[in-house]
Amino acid sequence: MKVIQVGIVGGTGYTGVELLRLLVNHPQAQVKIITSRAENGVRVDQLYPSLRGFLDLQFSEPDVDALASCDVVFFATPHGVAQAMMPELISRGVRVIDLSADFRIRDQQVWEQWYGQQHGCPELVSSAVYGLPEVNRAQIKDAQLVACPGCYPTATQLGFIPLLESGLVDPTNLIANAASGASGAGRQGKIDNLMSEVSDSFKAYAADGHRHLPEIEQGLNDVLAADDEPVQLTFVPHLLPIIRGIHATLYADLKGSVADLQQVFEARYADEPFVDVLPAGVHPQTRTVKSVNTCRISVFQPQQRGKVVVLSVIDNLTKGASGQAVQNMNIMFGFEETAGLNQVAILP
Amino acid sequence: MKVIQVGIVGGTGYTGVELLRLLVNHPQAQVKIITSRAENGVRVDQLYPSLRGFLDLQFSEPDVDALASCDVVFFATPHGVAQAMMPELISRGVRVIDLSADFRIRDQQVWEQWYGQQHGCPELVSSAVYGLPEVNRAQIKDAQLVACPGCYPTATQLGFIPLLESGLVDPTNLIANAASGASGAGRQGKIDNLMSEVSDSFKAYAADGHRHLPEIEQGLNDVLAADDEPVQLTFVPHLLPIIRGIHATLYADLKGSVADLQQVFEARYADEPFVDVLPAGVHPQTRTVKSVNTCRISVFQPQQRGKVVVLSVIDNLTKGASGQAVQNMNIMFGFEETAGLNQVAILP
Amino acid sequence: MKVIQVGIVGGTGYTGVELLRLLVNHPQAQVKIITSRAENGVRVDQLYPSLRGFLDLQFSEPDVDALASCDVVFFATPHGVAQAMMPELISRGVRVIDLSADFRIRDQQVWEQWYGQQHGCPELVSSAVYGLPEVNRAQIKDAQLVACPGCYPTATQLGFIPLLESGLVDPTNLIANAASGASGAGRQGKIDNLMSEVSDSFKAYAADGHRHLPEIEQGLNDVLAADDEPVQLTFVPHLLPIIRGIHATLYADLKGSVADLQQVFEARYADEPFVDVLPAGVHPQTRTVKSVNTCRISVFQPQQRGKVVVLSVIDNLTKGASGQAVQNMNIMFGFEETAGLNQVAILP
Amino acid sequence: MKVIQVGIVGGTGYTGVELLRLLVNHPQAQVKIITSRAENGVRVDQLYPSLRGFLDLQFSEPDVDALASCDVVFFATPHGVAQAMMPELISRGVRVIDLSADFRIRDQQVWEQWYGQQHGCPELVSSAVYGLPEVNRAQIKDAQLVACPGCYPTATQLGFIPLLESGLVDPTNLIANAASGASGAGRQGKIDNLMSEVSDSFKAYAADGHRHLPEIEQGLNDVLAADDEPVQLTFVPHLLPIIRGIHATLYADLKGSVADLQQVFEARYADEPFVDVLPAGVHPQTRTVKSVNTCRISVFQPQQRGKVVVLSVIDNLTKGASGQAVQNMNIMFGFEETAGLNQVAILP
Repeated sequence: MKVIQVGIVGGTGYTGVELLRLLVNHPQAQVKIITSRAENGVRVDQLYPSLRGFLDLQFSEPDVDALASCDVVFFATPHGVAQAMMPELISRGVRVIDLSADFRIRDQQVWEQWYGQQHGCPELVSSAVYGLPEVNRAQIKDAQLVACPGCYPTATQLGFIPLLESGLVDPTNLIANAASGASGAGRQGKIDNLMSEVSDSFKAYAADGHRHLPEIEQGLNDVLAADDEPVQLTFVPHLLPIIRGIHATLYADLKGSVADLQQVFEARYADEPFVDVLPAGVHPQTRTVKSVNTCRISVFQPQQRGKVVVLSVIDNLTKGASGQAVQNMNIMFGFEETAGLNQVAILP
Repeated sequence: MKVIQVGIVGGTGYTGVELLRLLVNHPQAQVKIITSRAENGVRVDQLYPSLRGFLDLQFSEPDVDALASCDVVFFATPHGVAQAMMPELISRGVRVIDLSADFRIRDQQVWEQWYGQQHGCPELVSSAVYGLPEVNRAQIKDAQLVACPGCYPTATQLGFIPLLESGLVDPTNLIANAASGASGAGRQGKIDNLMSEVSDSFKAYAADGHRHLPEIEQGLNDVLAADDEPVQLTFVPHLLPIIRGIHATLYADLKGSVADLQQVFEARYADEPFVDVLPAGVHPQTRTVKSVNTCRISVFQPQQRGKVVVLSVIDNLTKGASGQAVQNMNIMFGFEETAGLNQVAILP
Repeated sequence: MKVIQVGIVGGTGYTGVELLRLLVNHPQAQVKIITSRAENGVRVDQLYPSLRGFLDLQFSEPDVDALASCDVVFFATPHGVAQAMMPELISRGVRVIDLSADFRIRDQQVWEQWYGQQHGCPELVSSAVYGLPEVNRAQIKDAQLVACPGCYPTATQLGFIPLLESGLVDPTNLIANAASGASGAGRQGKIDNLMSEVSDSFKAYAADGHRHLPEIEQGLNDVLAADDEPVQLTFVPHLLPIIRGIHATLYADLKGSVADLQQVFEARYADEPFVDVLPAGVHPQTRTVKSVNTCRISVFQPQQRGKVVVLSVIDNLTKGASGQAVQNMNIMFGFEETAGLNQVAILP
Repeated sequence: MKVIQVGIVGGTGYTGVELLRLLVNHPQAQVKIITSRAENGVRVDQLYPSLRGFLDLQFSEPDVDALASCDVVFFATPHGVAQAMMPELISRGVRVIDLSADFRIRDQQVWEQWYGQQHGCPELVSSAVYGLPEVNRAQIKDAQLVACPGCYPTATQLGFIPLLESGLVDPTNLIANAASGASGAGRQGKIDNLMSEVSDSFKAYAADGHRHLPEIEQGLNDVLAADDEPVQLTFVPHLLPIIRGIHATLYADLKGSVADLQQVFEARYADEPFVDVLPAGVHPQTRTVKSVNTCRISVFQPQQRGKVVVLSVIDNLTKGASGQAVQNMNIMFGFEETAGLNQVAILP
């Protein structure tokens, strides 16, 4: 059985430790390098005691030569960081899975506007494949550079795709009312993310514009039925007093009466290993996907009034980041797509 | 200073103890009777140690004669209970504030359909005043029977009212994406409400129809601008892993361009003691209204695309139930409207 | 590779679903039967959506013949239930792992006093092996009936054992100040366990006597150094507003000066796959053992005053119940002791 | 009715906003100045929206002349800050209530050892009165400088005092196993205090020595019965995944048999407005003191074995900090001791 060598750039954040959790038990991957400037020389299991006994490795300074010796390199860095090292790694033939937003958006100008900085290597953007396997599986297989989708975009696109692909709803009046657990804000010492600020409360944020909006609209436009007008999405994110989980409540206007929405969703995802359409009438809960790579989806048509409501949940660190990254790796290297991801959610 | 005698029917639930918290420090009200069949003879502060030192009273069996000796009787009972005792109390001249849903909906058939039971005294429904002071202050003043609004309906109506009254939005395409803390489900020993089921998770529920839908639609229809078509609302409630708080995220389509939505909201609520329109760009948080009777509201127009987003938060037990009930009492008896309610939210 | 057939009696509670989570991915066990009178005929993954795709089974009425056809039967029932079916199963040669307290205490009178009922089959008590592998591994291997330890007893005993075995502390003045997550109270619709009652609060309970006291004292007495007097333990449990996790803070008086307590603990557990002695000075956190079978332990001697403090954490549903049960199964059937249990804790 | 002018130095932290919550509704105090270098010029209710409508004030640079014009100045600053401004304020006759640890410990060397810095004005230490009203009420009345006790010290001392004053227990073997909500760590952007780090977990910290140890031992030594040996306390603090609340579980060895421990506690605190001894057998919960200045206490003697267990709960921001500071202010200025503090805890 083939075993590949893995490098991780920027391993101290929550997506980094989640990658490690999944990779140390992956049958065909071995973590060889994990970099962190700030924690250089520190044992990984000192920062993350959950890994004691599973990983005998220290954080190291990022080094292109060392990374280039890996079969695949994951970037679990803040936005803007991957761009600097990317050209060199790509030119040396390494395959890269980038969990940041650096290569997700094809329109450089849009990217620069929403992320407030110049793009560091725009020449690579067009070659990057957007790593949503449920849409781009074939291209991911052969990609050298995969841009892993954001957490909100994953939950939202998986919920809207069956409706848009089949041309059932009006793309110009979509709403995504979504909520994320606190780990989505990352492992940074900010007052806004303190237990005493977040716990036992709930709020919307960025109601006038969140960076994930252009990414979602781009992804939805890619799957539009012929003759449909471009997507217009209203996207309002909220902060949940939980650690992990994204819940997206999606609203769209049906163009006409639909025989069986449940069947549309079940058919679309029948062969997908990580999308679970729940039985009619059942509501998904974020806890049923905690720590696993599954997206659970339900669809409702309240009072048969022409509005469709889709409920979509994922774990923001797994299907919303590191799990999906491993799924992409599995596809890229011809492994079983579920390898290392076949776990049961922790419940309760 | 006038002091009135207060009776409470059904005082063991969360709205009951919240009423007590507010009334024991109210300068012009004295709790004389608090009934509970199950806890008859038990000291109230044994069930609720937070009241030790504030209330020297035991739960007693409900007794119409005793209740009729009060100036005002609050019903903090499950739906269907208030109807039995109501005619007798009303005929004896007692003023009643009902926190249940029994008298909120004017259309008896609609009520019976959504609550799954026959109405016990339909003859009193038409005389009941819907206790939302921001709309019905004048009628509340003289009402004998006030039907206190539900928690979701309060947050939702206060958010939509400025838009609908002024005819700025299309009433036939409203969305209320709302979330409630666990105390909204009451103090009942159900598995679905256990710490281990609710905590660290999030879910929608009743996506295909919740009892508060007809109540909200009725209230919104009452404030429509002339010539507007009846309201069609899509309402999806969610369960938050917090104890107290409602957050409503409301969506509507603007009919045309609006000069200054912020100004519309500020003007509408300028004289309201319990509605606080936040400065432009600020998002409300449920924790800033925890334990107080205030509704905090923000309004956004994302990307200037013709969709308006209103964010509205209340404490479901205070402005969403017992606080609003006391506010109604203050209005009915000519007290300062903020008497007993002038507290600062606990933060953090 | 040998695969055994597994039956589970009483599978609707939290220890039941935790057993299923571990067993559906166990390489050498197959769940054949799972009983529940209340949920007879209901698909297991309808009650626990986290199991969708992993288990194609319905709850069934308990049936001795069917259970007797299994290689091993787990009892995940409330106390008192296992006793009824036990003699029949034992006589038919089935091996049994009982997660309830029914066979943990050797002194029948003590059991009946603390559990408030008569014992249903006292004749089997003496043949039961107390399933704490770190003490009884050899006897577990050959046992037909294993009584799996309670959650508090596991965390507490693992913390005290190195000190008592080596005779370093006075057994007559031990204190266990322990705290458990809410899942320890089980999946029962009781008001005391509601989100609104438990969340954002903390309390001690049963300070004047908890059922786990005699179990812990029995276990500690079993490992006393020669000539030591019997254990006297003060045990105060507390309820944590978390779902999973036990934290035990243990206090004992050193008999004399000790060269290196850290070394005592590391040596004692050097070969134990599921006990992790942390580096000196590091405090264990319950989250680092969430969902795994590991006990993490630290030892301190504050101000070198002769008092030793041991900190011991487990997941109450895993090492404190179902994980330990699977560990026992692995030992009984000669499997790798870590089979099916080799997971990384979910963090964050 | 006399109204005094109040200044607050360092008002952006959690004890600052808690002081404001209590003072804006205090009948005899008016907040005139609130300083913050970082937030100079910012409206206070912009940082703390809970205060909207209650306080029309901006943060200002600390200015001794302005502060000297107040009747009383509260320091809600980190340790080490109050010392710089104190001599000037004291010399100008202002009365000062210091919530930091700067003047709590009489032994300068001990203070400097535990706080890792030189003391800035040791000459004022001896004149400071330790502001625990239940012990020092008379001295507080006339004090110019009151050093308000820490949160752990308040809960712990109130629990041990009845036992030590009456000489019932051995002072050389005391244990305080205490747990604090996350707000105790203050409003600082540290990774260790993030929602994703603290929530759904539990841990001990500083098991080998916490700064509150010498403060507690000093306070307990002050109340020892004659002939008793000095206190030796083992103190282990823990971090609770809640926002507010301290729970102290205290252990001591009874010297002999005691007729009625319950009576000892009830008698000691019979006249105290903010200490509530619960009925025998009832366990205190932190939620019953959330947001109020009350300490609730229970006492147990498990299995009548000679060990006494005291359970003591407070809100760390109220009786553990700002509430106690206001209580001290009331005593110093001859107000009703409960003025501004007579609230009911928020429950649920």
